[in-house]
Amino acid sequence: MMNCEINGMFDPESLVVIGASSKRDYYFLRCHENFKGKLYAVNRNEEAGREVIPGVKFYRSVLDIPEKIDFAIIEVPGEEIPAIIRKCGKRGVKFATVFASGYSELGTEAGKHAEEELIEAANAAGIKIIGPNCMGIYYPAKGMSFRFDLSTESGEVSFVSQSGGHALNFSLLGSIHGIKFDKVISYGNGAMIDSTDLIEYLMHDPSTGIIAAYIEGVKDGRRFLSVLKEAAQIKPVIIWKGGVTDAGASAVTSHSGSLAGDARIWDAALKQAGVIRVDDMDELIDVTSTLTTSPLPENRRVGIISISGGQCVVLADLASRYGFRIPPLGDVTREKLSKLMPNVGTSIKNPIDGAASWANLGTVKETIRLVMEDEGIDSVLIEISIHYMLHIFYHNEEDRMSRLYEILCELKNQSRKPFFVILSPSNYWHERRLLEEKLIESGVPVFPGFKRALKTLKNLLHYKERGGRSLYE
Amino acid sequence: MMNCEINGMFDPESLVVIGASSKRDYYFLRCHENFKGKLYAVNRNEEAGREVIPGVKFYRSVLDIPEKIDFAIIEVPGEEIPAIIRKCGKRGVKFATVFASGYSELGTEAGKHAEEELIEAANAAGIKIIGPNCMGIYYPAKGMSFRFDLSTESGEVSFVSQSGGHALNFSLLGSIHGIKFDKVISYGNGAMIDSTDLIEYLMHDPSTGIIAAYIEGVKDGRRFLSVLKEAAQIKPVIIWKGGVTDAGASAVTSHSGSLAGDARIWDAALKQAGVIRVDDMDELIDVTSTLTTSPLPENRRVGIISISGGQCVVLADLASRYGFRIPPLGDVTREKLSKLMPNVGTSIKNPIDGAASWANLGTVKETIRLVMEDEGIDSVLIEISIHYMLHIFYHNEEDRMSRLYEILCELKNQSRKPFFVILSPSNYWHERRLLEEKLIESGVPVFPGFKRALKTLKNLLHYKERGGRSLYE
Repeated sequence: MMNCEINGMFDPESLVVIGASSKRDYYFLRCHENFKGKLYAVNRNEEAGREVIPGVKFYRSVLDIPEKIDFAIIEVPGEEIPAIIRKCGKRGVKFATVFASGYSELGTEAGKHAEEELIEAANAAGIKIIGPNCMGIYYPAKGMSFRFDLSTESGEVSFVSQSGGHALNFSLLGSIHGIKFDKVISYGNGAMIDSTDLIEYLMHDPSTGIIAAYIEGVKDGRRFLSVLKEAAQIKPVIIWKGGVTDAGASAVTSHSGSLAGDARIWDAALKQAGVIRVDDMDELIDVTSTLTTSPLPENRRVGIISISGGQCVVLADLASRYGFRIPPLGDVTREKLSKLMPNVGTSIKNPIDGAASWANLGTVKETIRLVMEDEGIDSVLIEISIHYMLHIFYHNEEDRMSRLYEILCELKNQSRKPFFVILSPSNYWHERRLLEEKLIESGVPVFPGFKRALKTLKNLLHYKERGGRSLYE
Repeated sequence: MMNCEINGMFDPESLVVIGASSKRDYYFLRCHENFKGKLYAVNRNEEAGREVIPGVKFYRSVLDIPEKIDFAIIEVPGEEIPAIIRKCGKRGVKFATVFASGYSELGTEAGKHAEEELIEAANAAGIKIIGPNCMGIYYPAKGMSFRFDLSTESGEVSFVSQSGGHALNFSLLGSIHGIKFDKVISYGNGAMIDSTDLIEYLMHDPSTGIIAAYIEGVKDGRRFLSVLKEAAQIKPVIIWKGGVTDAGASAVTSHSGSLAGDARIWDAALKQAGVIRVDDMDELIDVTSTLTTSPLPENRRVGIISISGGQCVVLADLASRYGFRIPPLGDVTREKLSKLMPNVGTSIKNPIDGAASWANLGTVKETIRLVMEDEGIDSVLIEISIHYMLHIFYHNEEDRMSRLYEILCELKNQSRKPFFVILSPSNYWHERRLLEEKLIESGVPVFPGFKRALKTLKNLLHYKERGGRSLYE
């Protein structure tokens, strides 16, 4: 059952931006240029009828709009908001986002009082507020946004964030990692609608495939946990908890006015709820993107392939530290590899040190395929150093980078196991990024370093062990 | 006292590349195009007198060269090498690098035997071998190199690496992080000259300011440790140990044929020696570059500045986990900050959440300066999200990115404390990289993420606590 309070929040037929002004470059108004519905602008200082976006007229007051309005984005200063809310109620507004800060996050009596007054006005007007102290909603299918440079493409990832900054960052950065969003909601202080309400809504939302959330604190821990548990049984839920140390918790207080809570209690509760817990933006991006592009590992046996013996040593060290095993390959695989690769300079023990055999991309492809097909291997990590690809001792192919891209895509598509490409940092900055972009577009999981790949694999493994499933499968 | 065995190794007047061939695109020959001395090429199958590099003639045999030769780079297959070595001895060669693998790293009797035979031939010929199974020397001041795309600029960092791959990677990647090299030596199996010999030489080498080393195993642990201790008293020594887990140690065996040794013994020994220990390439790059661009932190009190409250929370959490304190700022600082920044949406508690005040770069500059000058703060971390700089709610400056760059350089130059810029990943890929490049060129320590910045600060703090000094001071 969906959270009824939120029903309709993502389906407004008309939307008004109140307080859009040249001083802020008409920020939220321009963000809604692609709104799929009727769009209005209000500013008592703007000339009535003026159009910043063609066809979207300015009104001096929301009361002047001739039509019923479903949704309001309010970017006026805090003291004016209660009066605005009352007017909105008269126009039938059901939902509003409040950008302004200066409420309970200040930690002062005045701030607390202002937030109470805001809620009171909203309740009286029959309006559900998102915020205050928030960026609101990015929902590309509806043309709602909080940045004008966000992708207009829709996907299946929904994100609930107490931090506006993280909501922006994930929406922007996620897109260059291949993540496409359904709904992103920056809810700030969560005065009327908080993370629990939103997750409760999203778990039954048919267009949401994965729920991710950045949370600093919650109001009702018991209800939050029970909602999380239920949601995690329906779809993957990824939780990023901010304020897990005393210093972080102290920063939380002045950021969203929440109580961050004891780290150990959170730890235990999140584990019990069966969610995937991440600790930073990189992890959030990596887990979210691989859940849509990769199967989960069956177990902890990894095959490691690199061109460099030194990289093999370091990757093996790290994989081992992350709790993985690097078992010898099966007899059949080893026999085939020994025929394929020169016996000096290389190693076929796992890690596979391809060394000079990488001069021939056909050999590279066959090497990876053999490791991938070994029954004793659950996941395959392949490390690519672009500078070797570009300037290896001898090369025959016309366009090695395109050929390498094709090979990696083909192998990925054949694999029923996690197949992770680690694209090492390189001074060939642009060539590296170009390959990365193409691989991401084709749904090949690609990581900028060993740690991110291994941390992701570990997160997926733990999730699998608790009965989790990937959207890819 | 310098290691006499190595004296002269970095000062050859004449150099020959033996085995340079079209099949490998004359790899090592082309690497020495800028060699400052007389350069020759040998290949029994090449036409005598042919010039791949103008003025550098091919000979059919090293014996045909009319002059005495100091240094030989040997890239012929293993079985031909002893005979070549004997001929080199007759031409007065004192040092040679042997690229070929197929020696003790194979872990076979045949491999071990081949290495013994190689050493025997070298001893008889009076030649010191670097390698086998190595890339040799990159020494820009002399025009010696193992890649043709390496910087020709000299610096004060010397690197000793058992892995050819890591030697290449650090030389290439280091350069885009502002690191300039004096001598990089990939010594492979270290049959005659190993890490201990090289570090012993470098500690007295006047052009080496910092010694860094990637080590898989050493032959004589007692001597290694005693050399390390002595070296660490003279200049900063950074050790990266590969093969610290069973899986890594097993990979070491097939890579360089070394015994990796017990991880705990290494741990204790390196700590006792007073070196800086790093665990991966990122750490190696970060510590090396900051030792030439930053003072060391006096203590563990950090000031954190960001535009986003969410980033503040996450950075505070992480800083705390890395053992740092985020103390409140002093009364004077707070009073000045409270006048500078709007009192809603921001926080001046430390972390400093600048929020919308970042719209004015003058305010940003003043905020950072105030934190930097606070006596209760030992290091300043400033987080920059490029996408905020490019699309903030309102902006007045013509070229915000150039202005931001100028401000950061100016503040860095005024700071007597570590001043680290964290340039968050961004979908504005090129704009971010451009700023990063400019900051690195100007010697501003810049990090692509929170963890790398904090890990580096921690490494520097520990080093300081053991009496270490930065080259910057």
